[in-house]
Amino acid sequence: MSEFAGVTVVREANIYFNGAVASHTVLFPDGSKKTLGIMQPGEYTFNTGAAELMEILTGELDLQLAGETGWRRIGGGQSFEVAANSSFTMKVQTVADYCCSFLA
Amino acid sequence: MSEFAGVTVVREANIYFNGAVASHTVLFPDGSKKTLGIMQPGEYTFNTGAAELMEILTGELDLQLAGETGWRRIGGGQSFEVAANSSFTMKVQTVADYCCSFLA
Repeated sequence: MSEFAGVTVVREANIYFNGAVASHTVLFPDGSKKTLGIMQPGEYTFNTGAAELMEILTGELDLQLAGETGWRRIGGGQSFEVAANSSFTMKVQTVADYCCSFLA
Repeated sequence: MSEFAGVTVVREANIYFNGAVASHTVLFPDGSKKTLGIMQPGEYTFNTGAAELMEILTGELDLQLAGETGWRRIGGGQSFEVAANSSFTMKVQTVADYCCSFLA
């Protein structure tokens, strides 16, 4: 378990796909941002603005980045990066707890 | 939208009911604690240790506190308190975003 100290948290959740994906925004003193979220099983495509580092804390999903043809399995303890102004699709197999860092 | 500044957030989610209810813990400088969470539709019974103030930010649920026989509808913008060492059951009708404050 780890903690982020000295941060600001937005009370209201970010809700996607009717709540099947939901996250809370954490703002850091250096101006950076992370979201802490939960994904229910299902298939979801997200577009990126900034590049993102997705850390999967628990759960299991299949990942396809934009331009890829295959899928790769990502499990708890693994992470992946998504380029800026791109997209990625996840087939979430078991409820996934994640930490998404928005990269400068 | 509101924010909690100068707090500590636990990175890993609290997962209940196979992730149908999940929350993130926020720790305040005064030692108090809140959790920010999301509930998928379904029926859930929780036991309390400390008394709790549950603020429903969005969504809709039917609530029954321990010892009650009926149900009352709670919607976004409404809240309810649960006594210490008690329990409550929620029938969540639409995905609910909540803020739970643990009362001293």
